[in-house]
Amino acid sequence: MRLAPADFVPDGRLTTGTVLLGELPLSRVFLMDDSRFAWLVLVPRLEGACEIADLAESDALQLMREARLASNALRKVVPCDKLNVASLGNMVPQLHLHVVARLKGDAAWPGPVFGVPGGMPYTPEGRDARCVAMRAALGL
Amino acid sequence: MRLAPADFVPDGRLTTGTVLLGELPLSRVFLMDDSRFAWLVLVPRLEGACEIADLAESDALQLMREARLASNALRKVVPCDKLNVASLGNMVPQLHLHVVARLKGDAAWPGPVFGVPGGMPYTPEGRDARCVAMRAALGL
Repeated sequence: MRLAPADFVPDGRLTTGTVLLGELPLSRVFLMDDSRFAWLVLVPRLEGACEIADLAESDALQLMREARLASNALRKVVPCDKLNVASLGNMVPQLHLHVVARLKGDAAWPGPVFGVPGGMPYTPEGRDARCVAMRAALGL
Repeated sequence: MRLAPADFVPDGRLTTGTVLLGELPLSRVFLMDDSRFAWLVLVPRLEGACEIADLAESDALQLMREARLASNALRKVVPCDKLNVASLGNMVPQLHLHVVARLKGDAAWPGPVFGVPGGMPYTPEGRDARCVAMRAALGL
C-alpha cells in the first residue's frame, strides 16, 4: 500500500546519518550525510516493502522513473563519471534504492561505496548548500 | 538503438567468467561463473548504453521488468534471504545490471558481492545443472 508522507515511518537506520530532502510521488528522498560522495537514498512509501520483485508493477516502474530523476539531479549538481543505482538491503531490509554519483578517484573508486569506512559528514554550510542544490535539481 | 541478438557484441569483460543463458526482449542474460553466489547479469542490447538515466524511458521500464523476472527466477532456483539489484559499471561502463540471490552467511554477507575475491567457478556438472534450472525459471 502506498502511504501518504504523514503516515510513513521509515526504518530508523535509514534516517540516521542522512538528511531528508523531500517527497517524490512514490519515494521519500534522503541525502547521505557523507561529503565524500553525492549519494541519494530513495525509500518508497510502501508498507512492508523489501524486494523490488514484490512490488506492484506500477510501483516498480515508478521507482525506475524516480531513480532516473535522482540520477539526472545528481549529475546536474555534481558532474560525475558514473552513476551507481542499487537496491541491496542486506543490512536494512526495508526497500531503499541507492543512487550515487561516482568520480574516478573518489574514496571508493572503482569499488562500490557501500560499507566503505571513514564517512565524512558535511560541514553545516556544506550540507545546507548541497541540500539546496539537490532539492532544486529534484524539483522538490 | 535496440539490437537484434545477432547484431549485439557485449564488452568482453562481461562475457569472460560468465555463461550465456539466453535472450530476454531487451537484455542478454548471463550467469556469473561463481558457485558462491546465484548471480545473473543482464546486458541490454542497446548500442552505447552506459547509464539507466540515458535510456529511452520505454527501455528503462523494460529493464525494470526484466530485473523483476530475473529476481523471481533466481529465488525459484535458490531460495534466498535477499535479492540485490545493482547497476554500477565503474569497471565496465557498458550498461549491465547485476541481480544476485543473497543468503545470510554467504561468502560476502552482509556486504555487497562486487569485487569480492576468491571466485569459485562451478564444476562442469554444477554449471550445467544451474544453467538448466535458470533457463527454465527465466522461460528461456
